[in-house]
Amino acid sequence: MSHKTDKKFEEITLSTEPIFQGKIISLQVDTVQLPNGSTATREIVRHPGAVAVLALIGDKMLVVEQYRKPMEKSQVEIPAGKLDPGEHPQEAAARELAEETGYRSASLKLLSSFYTSPGFADELIHLYVADDLSQGEARPDEDEFLEVEAITLEQAQHYIREGRISDAKTIMAVYAWQIMKLGGTL
Amino acid sequence: MSHKTDKKFEEITLSTEPIFQGKIISLQVDTVQLPNGSTATREIVRHPGAVAVLALIGDKMLVVEQYRKPMEKSQVEIPAGKLDPGEHPQEAAARELAEETGYRSASLKLLSSFYTSPGFADELIHLYVADDLSQGEARPDEDEFLEVEAITLEQAQHYIREGRISDAKTIMAVYAWQIMKLGGTL
Repeated sequence: MSHKTDKKFEEITLSTEPIFQGKIISLQVDTVQLPNGSTATREIVRHPGAVAVLALIGDKMLVVEQYRKPMEKSQVEIPAGKLDPGEHPQEAAARELAEETGYRSASLKLLSSFYTSPGFADELIHLYVADDLSQGEARPDEDEFLEVEAITLEQAQHYIREGRISDAKTIMAVYAWQIMKLGGTL
Repeated sequence: MSHKTDKKFEEITLSTEPIFQGKIISLQVDTVQLPNGSTATREIVRHPGAVAVLALIGDKMLVVEQYRKPMEKSQVEIPAGKLDPGEHPQEAAARELAEETGYRSASLKLLSSFYTSPGFADELIHLYVADDLSQGEARPDEDEFLEVEAITLEQAQHYIREGRISDAKTIMAVYAWQIMKLGGTL
């Protein structure tokens, strides 16, 4: 669509209050002018962006289990991680896959790029599908503790029902995989 | 799985620094003890949780276009909104659907509940599918400006390719709809 529709209902920034600059995210509160002329505040989290990989080995996908502090529980997710500064998403996807699982892929294809929480954050995740995998040695970050597993679609659906898989990128990857298996196009 | 695996690689909270308490989100930085005994910090956004609705009318789904300040562009998304304090997710789904689109549903069924950004936020979205819709009058919040549209699966896929649809909950809803149409089970 045109640039015009892109700015429909635009909220003009009147002022920006920086609140926090962390190692991963930053937070600001913008005061904005709404289309009707009145003002409102918007709490905005800035994030460097991330990548995630649906890595397929035969009829299985690679997942990693790790502790997620915001939810105070361990979760099974597809390999993923933040973009390094200046890094191309496809490089980051290859790097994260190798670091977390040890696997290298000769074929990484972008499935979709999506915002996780458009109401309050600008985090954009690039989801790749990888096959043609070869095994190497995993090298997680020093503060990263995780366990790698390869699971079937049925196991993934079971994990979703159990709540062991419960994050947007992984459920989306499982859905995309199911669509491919059903012969649909994304 | 058991409670034991739920806490695998647990990160023990050593201290919590509250940074910000906003109208929608709050932010804290936790210092944690990792499984190997060393310490790290975790930047954590707290969110009240949200609901989203895949609302189907015949072969179309309802979407709303609105401006998303974090991305500085308008986006097409399924109807969604935050939980009010103490509100059951299904009530919230019915309320948001009615407020944003004017439609009431006699049938709201939970499709999945997912964390949007498990690395830094505890936001949990409950995604419902609604059919058997009857039309009423939309009543958006006073600071909410949006436009309602009903689109086919093919249009939704086109919007995804164009980037007009680019958020996790909406892409997930489109994928789920496609799986249902292909005869798959979620």
